[in-house]
Amino acid sequence: MSDERDLPRSYVEAHLQARPTNRYGPSFTFLGVPQASLREPDSLTDARAVILGAPFDAGTSYRPGARFGPRAIRAADYISHSGYRPHLGLGVDPLGELGVVDVGDVNMPQLDSEGGLRRLMEACRQVSAAGAMPVVLGGDHTITYATAQGVAKHHGFGRVALIHFDAHADTGDSEGGLWGHGTPMRRLILSGAIRGDRFLQIGLRGYWPDPPILEWMAEQRMRWYEMTEVVERGLDACLSEALERASDDCDGVFLSVDVDVVDPGMAPGTGTPESGGLTSRQLLDAVRRIGMESNLLGMDVVEVAPPYDQSDVTALLGNRVVLETLSGVTVRRNAAQR
Amino acid sequence: MSDERDLPRSYVEAHLQARPTNRYGPSFTFLGVPQASLREPDSLTDARAVILGAPFDAGTSYRPGARFGPRAIRAADYISHSGYRPHLGLGVDPLGELGVVDVGDVNMPQLDSEGGLRRLMEACRQVSAAGAMPVVLGGDHTITYATAQGVAKHHGFGRVALIHFDAHADTGDSEGGLWGHGTPMRRLILSGAIRGDRFLQIGLRGYWPDPPILEWMAEQRMRWYEMTEVVERGLDACLSEALERASDDCDGVFLSVDVDVVDPGMAPGTGTPESGGLTSRQLLDAVRRIGMESNLLGMDVVEVAPPYDQSDVTALLGNRVVLETLSGVTVRRNAAQR
Amino acid sequence: MSDERDLPRSYVEAHLQARPTNRYGPSFTFLGVPQASLREPDSLTDARAVILGAPFDAGTSYRPGARFGPRAIRAADYISHSGYRPHLGLGVDPLGELGVVDVGDVNMPQLDSEGGLRRLMEACRQVSAAGAMPVVLGGDHTITYATAQGVAKHHGFGRVALIHFDAHADTGDSEGGLWGHGTPMRRLILSGAIRGDRFLQIGLRGYWPDPPILEWMAEQRMRWYEMTEVVERGLDACLSEALERASDDCDGVFLSVDVDVVDPGMAPGTGTPESGGLTSRQLLDAVRRIGMESNLLGMDVVEVAPPYDQSDVTALLGNRVVLETLSGVTVRRNAAQR
Amino acid sequence: MSDERDLPRSYVEAHLQARPTNRYGPSFTFLGVPQASLREPDSLTDARAVILGAPFDAGTSYRPGARFGPRAIRAADYISHSGYRPHLGLGVDPLGELGVVDVGDVNMPQLDSEGGLRRLMEACRQVSAAGAMPVVLGGDHTITYATAQGVAKHHGFGRVALIHFDAHADTGDSEGGLWGHGTPMRRLILSGAIRGDRFLQIGLRGYWPDPPILEWMAEQRMRWYEMTEVVERGLDACLSEALERASDDCDGVFLSVDVDVVDPGMAPGTGTPESGGLTSRQLLDAVRRIGMESNLLGMDVVEVAPPYDQSDVTALLGNRVVLETLSGVTVRRNAAQR
Amino acid sequence: MSDERDLPRSYVEAHLQARPTNRYGPSFTFLGVPQASLREPDSLTDARAVILGAPFDAGTSYRPGARFGPRAIRAADYISHSGYRPHLGLGVDPLGELGVVDVGDVNMPQLDSEGGLRRLMEACRQVSAAGAMPVVLGGDHTITYATAQGVAKHHGFGRVALIHFDAHADTGDSEGGLWGHGTPMRRLILSGAIRGDRFLQIGLRGYWPDPPILEWMAEQRMRWYEMTEVVERGLDACLSEALERASDDCDGVFLSVDVDVVDPGMAPGTGTPESGGLTSRQLLDAVRRIGMESNLLGMDVVEVAPPYDQSDVTALLGNRVVLETLSGVTVRRNAAQR
Amino acid sequence: MSDERDLPRSYVEAHLQARPTNRYGPSFTFLGVPQASLREPDSLTDARAVILGAPFDAGTSYRPGARFGPRAIRAADYISHSGYRPHLGLGVDPLGELGVVDVGDVNMPQLDSEGGLRRLMEACRQVSAAGAMPVVLGGDHTITYATAQGVAKHHGFGRVALIHFDAHADTGDSEGGLWGHGTPMRRLILSGAIRGDRFLQIGLRGYWPDPPILEWMAEQRMRWYEMTEVVERGLDACLSEALERASDDCDGVFLSVDVDVVDPGMAPGTGTPESGGLTSRQLLDAVRRIGMESNLLGMDVVEVAPPYDQSDVTALLGNRVVLETLSGVTVRRNAAQR
Repeated sequence: MSDERDLPRSYVEAHLQARPTNRYGPSFTFLGVPQASLREPDSLTDARAVILGAPFDAGTSYRPGARFGPRAIRAADYISHSGYRPHLGLGVDPLGELGVVDVGDVNMPQLDSEGGLRRLMEACRQVSAAGAMPVVLGGDHTITYATAQGVAKHHGFGRVALIHFDAHADTGDSEGGLWGHGTPMRRLILSGAIRGDRFLQIGLRGYWPDPPILEWMAEQRMRWYEMTEVVERGLDACLSEALERASDDCDGVFLSVDVDVVDPGMAPGTGTPESGGLTSRQLLDAVRRIGMESNLLGMDVVEVAPPYDQSDVTALLGNRVVLETLSGVTVRRNAAQR
Repeated sequence: MSDERDLPRSYVEAHLQARPTNRYGPSFTFLGVPQASLREPDSLTDARAVILGAPFDAGTSYRPGARFGPRAIRAADYISHSGYRPHLGLGVDPLGELGVVDVGDVNMPQLDSEGGLRRLMEACRQVSAAGAMPVVLGGDHTITYATAQGVAKHHGFGRVALIHFDAHADTGDSEGGLWGHGTPMRRLILSGAIRGDRFLQIGLRGYWPDPPILEWMAEQRMRWYEMTEVVERGLDACLSEALERASDDCDGVFLSVDVDVVDPGMAPGTGTPESGGLTSRQLLDAVRRIGMESNLLGMDVVEVAPPYDQSDVTALLGNRVVLETLSGVTVRRNAAQR
Repeated sequence: MSDERDLPRSYVEAHLQARPTNRYGPSFTFLGVPQASLREPDSLTDARAVILGAPFDAGTSYRPGARFGPRAIRAADYISHSGYRPHLGLGVDPLGELGVVDVGDVNMPQLDSEGGLRRLMEACRQVSAAGAMPVVLGGDHTITYATAQGVAKHHGFGRVALIHFDAHADTGDSEGGLWGHGTPMRRLILSGAIRGDRFLQIGLRGYWPDPPILEWMAEQRMRWYEMTEVVERGLDACLSEALERASDDCDGVFLSVDVDVVDPGMAPGTGTPESGGLTSRQLLDAVRRIGMESNLLGMDVVEVAPPYDQSDVTALLGNRVVLETLSGVTVRRNAAQR
Repeated sequence: MSDERDLPRSYVEAHLQARPTNRYGPSFTFLGVPQASLREPDSLTDARAVILGAPFDAGTSYRPGARFGPRAIRAADYISHSGYRPHLGLGVDPLGELGVVDVGDVNMPQLDSEGGLRRLMEACRQVSAAGAMPVVLGGDHTITYATAQGVAKHHGFGRVALIHFDAHADTGDSEGGLWGHGTPMRRLILSGAIRGDRFLQIGLRGYWPDPPILEWMAEQRMRWYEMTEVVERGLDACLSEALERASDDCDGVFLSVDVDVVDPGMAPGTGTPESGGLTSRQLLDAVRRIGMESNLLGMDVVEVAPPYDQSDVTALLGNRVVLETLSGVTVRRNAAQR
Repeated sequence: MSDERDLPRSYVEAHLQARPTNRYGPSFTFLGVPQASLREPDSLTDARAVILGAPFDAGTSYRPGARFGPRAIRAADYISHSGYRPHLGLGVDPLGELGVVDVGDVNMPQLDSEGGLRRLMEACRQVSAAGAMPVVLGGDHTITYATAQGVAKHHGFGRVALIHFDAHADTGDSEGGLWGHGTPMRRLILSGAIRGDRFLQIGLRGYWPDPPILEWMAEQRMRWYEMTEVVERGLDACLSEALERASDDCDGVFLSVDVDVVDPGMAPGTGTPESGGLTSRQLLDAVRRIGMESNLLGMDVVEVAPPYDQSDVTALLGNRVVLETLSGVTVRRNAAQR
Repeated sequence: MSDERDLPRSYVEAHLQARPTNRYGPSFTFLGVPQASLREPDSLTDARAVILGAPFDAGTSYRPGARFGPRAIRAADYISHSGYRPHLGLGVDPLGELGVVDVGDVNMPQLDSEGGLRRLMEACRQVSAAGAMPVVLGGDHTITYATAQGVAKHHGFGRVALIHFDAHADTGDSEGGLWGHGTPMRRLILSGAIRGDRFLQIGLRGYWPDPPILEWMAEQRMRWYEMTEVVERGLDACLSEALERASDDCDGVFLSVDVDVVDPGMAPGTGTPESGGLTSRQLLDAVRRIGMESNLLGMDVVEVAPPYDQSDVTALLGNRVVLETLSGVTVRRNAAQR
């Protein structure tokens, strides 16, 4: 069962914009940054960060809808889509100073998960090779298998630490787990792309996964910070420890943010909500610190599912996670250049 | 990427109900009818109609969510879930008189469309072989490739006419079309299961498919009633003509109802809405007539997508399409027995 | 368990407006008509129609919320709440020409259904005795036992015909039926207030009540027009017949409109929706005719349940049912005065 | 109080797309048609119809939000935004065959209504002068003063008939009426742009405007078809009469569609809903006929207010009103060329 | 006015499942735990905790809908309803280790509050007598009069301390207060079931009740922790103090959680929201501590009102309050057994 | 284009209530406090605080709807609208003890922003001159130019400090900024009404305004507390510092609360949401302190936009901001009188 639209091509091709972005609905870029294309390497030359959409949600075990995440995160903002966003406190414009461009959605048909993940992995590798940081808008969490591995393919297997905000560990084994989006973290470790002892998870809670999976995680020497630990020690202390470990014998960090790490009462637009999460403020402060205090090599923001959102607040949060992280990166970069 | 939940089985199995129904969320049957199981043939002995869920929506080209259709259609009713529903006007209780049972959801993982469709097709064949009518709750329209073909496998390829309510023809070719849920009707004809000239579509409208596909449809001698024809001639006249053709050199009818045949203003809970459809009243009157005036061999109700619904009105409509059709069937059956 | 608020009275009484209207939330009148009070008979002197709220929903068998119906129906309108509404086609201002006033909500605690119904019945009787027509905003349909009987107490038991728009017959017997709001019609007939053969129901459909109840209804010589008959003969023909019967050996008509007579796809804000109803247009045309062609003695509009509504469309429909009926009444009255 | 964004221009200009479309949020064209610009006359050369957005809602008397109408109407469609939409029944592709382009939103600040209307009027005049038909996406109905007059400025005052679908007459006088969006029709007549006796209104109902305004309308020899007349005579008969009058001593027609002409139960996404309207099907059939049977010179679709919509059904209806009208125009045009 | 459904019993009884759970809609158990019945004492033998539903909301002073609380709380979870929920941090499975079963909804008709409360009280007493802890899913807060008293009937009047999370004190006197759900706490104290000086309220805020009621509360030596105290001292300190008092001369604790103790911005699905509450995280941490640090004898979770919820986040919170408390209980129990 | 409704005055005037409150929809006062009128100075004699509505949203740069803010804030409460609200913790009744009255909405047509602002400014000046504190319910933030200046006109330019809670600085320059509601703070300073060095902003965050505007703010010696500073130092410490500065060489404080200072996940009903704000609890504690610790001369609560709200939680928050502030004022006032 193929997954391509059979349009009368002669006519359509003339009218289709050369560089579509969103797979679903109208095409536009993240907050109006310039459009680029992976097929035109020159278009990436000046970019230090590249937006990619991963509109895939067939890996979702419960509520689908994250396929519309890239579109919603790109659009969510009340300010003019000018490709310009000066950070109020830091005094940097991450979009302009990092030369951010948007190469649109990767082709990820719902019925061909393997093909889609392969294309996404290659796209992330290619962006890394071009000297830029892929910033991937999901999609369900299945995609992180491809995004983090794509980055590791360029920077070296085992050389990239992973900091992972989530309510769920997503380390189900290959026979199951929370279905598609419940397994990527195990697979990343098994592939060798990410070392287990450089896999740092923040915000876990609830009733999944089962003890045998937790044992496997411990065997891999993964480190996870449950919400109870975050509450007791403070998020800053946990993050400091995580950043320290991440920089030990690794060359940089990949950041994966599942928006369900935030309490579903504050971020309802997601597929597998778990009560008792971070506040939005905590998440934004944390990702900005990561941008400032680590060598960030790539990131993704996943599980924004617009059909369950209220007045776009969750999509906006996904958008701000990107901006706040990139603002931190810009500050770090500017400091390094001085 | 497997699609099964890896629970500590020894413990769970003791607690899991022997016959789960809904794949997603809690398990319960259609309006409280008795639960049965395809693995226990005796449980089907007295049934003339069998409910099956097909919670698959990875074939959806736009808004997913129809995976929750079976659960929502089973639940949508304000009256006590007693397995008893006396039809106000016809004086029959379709659930009781037809001995309706519910065998639960067929195992249809989103990431294994072929396996899921194969299991659904076999389930429909098995129900037919047991002398009952499968009543399948979708899921997206991809599933009709399996439901109608499963019925035809028992009753004979080419011996079953298909009456199809929909805004869309769903006859995209194998290279595309409206993706997964846009192709089943073409594939049914190509498989030989359903004769093109016994394929009757009611309610088409809008801007899809393209002329080449329409030409193919005409070559198959399909007959489609667009909304403009329905408005001009009246739905009753169109339906009379369709029923006449359906009974010519065929042994019975399969009914496929895509809830988007109704105007999205009245039935918003669906994935690919197209303005200008039937009213709910028109659809209910039509399916009751089909139950009364044809030899109905099976049916499905598809594309109910709860995340886009308003106060469950679309799920309720799906529920009533089942009841109204089965009420017609009961009347016909009672008349035949006199 | 009492149901009154124990406020420090000395202070509150000074501040409470003398004539509160809505029991729930802020107080205001129907579209700004003057406020009146049953305790001040003079305030009703010039009124030919009097608005009363019946914010009771403890009789609801499924989704509660109709207690907010009076408030929502009073408020639902985009035009200035000036107490003035000139009917576009008829050229009359029903609010001004009938001297409509609003006496606010009757005290109907959810936990004292009998007390509340008794007070409502007495209020309707009192309005009738004052020479005006009670226009009651529900509330669930339980209230019609009180509204219609209150009117009949003044005009004479058996002298008032009842025209009843509804998806449901609401004639459950005293041992059950659709719980509280499923029994009022039976009880009205058993009380002698309304003759069974002058009880005219329009719009019934679905799967309730059971055959034994239908038999009882037939024994009472009730006449019900199911949606299938409405579709086949046309609503106008059915209504003409109903009006004719209503005027035979009766002195006037009580009109009871359950908003669920309209299709839930068009009027979702109700508690026990049943697919396949009238359109809003049909209902408005019908009630205007009833106002023009019968001697209307009272009316109620029930089962508007705001928590399930979409952008207030159902509350607005309830509001327009009142205005359209009263516009018809005004035309008839003006004609009679010439 | 100015209304322009003061961005650091040197940077922003480099990044801003040369031809933005939507004033609010991301920029994209109507279903993916090519972008054009009024400042680049060559970009209009091959277009027979030109999309313009009029994102103005400060004229709204009640619920604002129509400023997001252009964006929502452009985006509302589940099919790929390819700029290609073959009409199922008519066999034409209106977008391609008419060479439709989108020049984006006219600059209409909420706090400068006069400036915005002046620019919109000039844009419509310019499109007309270029030999194309302006297709304006509102915005509240205030804008029709500018759209119809802009077309009349080119084709001649008094030479353009106006067919107007609406629940409201919008003929309030200069001292009031339904505020901003309640007066444009009066002003169009007073300006001489449109003759009163070639002003044809379909779908009026409810309780506005007042009798003195109706008298003024009658004095102008306007013709309005209230819903009661539409129900009694049928929409087709009313429309035939209207088309006949429109073609008498006029050179063509301007079509203005207020989406509130459809029943709010079916099209809730609007600001001043009035119960009892047309069905979506009726409206689509009517506008297609107008496209086929009149010399259409321009059109607008107004009062789509997304904040009150349910799953985008009203925005989709606005989108289909455009497509269905243009499909009719294409058929007529093709016939004329044979 | 009776409140039972009069179904043709001979037929229905054969089809009705022997042990229905939800009064409204389909029947299923809390997260799939085994079904049991109070009428079959053996079915409770191995249970240390028993789920009961209390679908009563006629005591609600404002927004009704909590009658759907039991159904929503039972269903709210994205993980398979397997009756198995291993706590991530604590390593226990509360459902399995406590042998949790679900006896379904107690019969609580809205129009017979006294009968319903009596049955609920007896059910809680019976569960306690069977050596298990009743876990009651409300329903409005009226029910706590029955739940806590039922537990006290077994364990001894005055021997059970009550820890009560709420925005409201619910101590209105018998002449009023916040109507039905505003009085239970006073009545519990007056009945002697709970000692006033062992009544501990956490999270109060807002503008109710009046000073005379607060004086009465002080006279009873109740202890309440307003949100301002919680903010100043920290929730942990307040809770430590409360737990200490609760264990002084009492044999155990009853926990009553009104979900409106959480800020309505995070938990909107409730009837009488009051701004400025706890976060979900705070509540979950607190109830887990109570499970671990007290001898918990019973609990209820009330005021979850699904019609006002957003994507089920409040229902999920209610579900997690149960799981988190029971997880704490399991840890304590395991420790005691070592 | 005028903005007044042209009703047949002779009739309407007789029926219109003498003192309407809400411009949109039905009229009622804030929680039932007595109605007063600026045209009847005696009606203000005993009031220490006066409620005014400012239903203006044409200054909104993105989502409109705040015109319905006054109506929603007045109505949002589940407790009886008795004009009595005893503060649970403080033991005062702010409404009664301050003699709060409501003079209704100021006439602020959307199309005449200057006229509306002029009338609002004069109303605030007049209330101040009457010895009371204006409490203005917005409306978008444009209105603060009028509210704060109106107060300063009475108390003296430069004599009033301004404490401003907001996600945005609203100091755009006269050529733009965040359009209408993005400029009032600059204009207040430029007018001389408020000294720049007594302008204290709390809660700023995000990506607006641009550095040049921030430089201008610094030149004015404004002091702004970004969320990052609030998180690091604690809100209490920041507020103490702000209160100290506010009381230095000023006679009192004007408090302006933009509800978007709270995280949009907790307060979604607003037009320009920015992730990462305060919690509702923090805001309520802060405004109560301001009432208790400063000489409050006036306040406004703005940007509550009901179309984007969830079950009225944001409107309720606006209501509680008023009550909590006035409760603080009452305590201070009582202490001063002892």
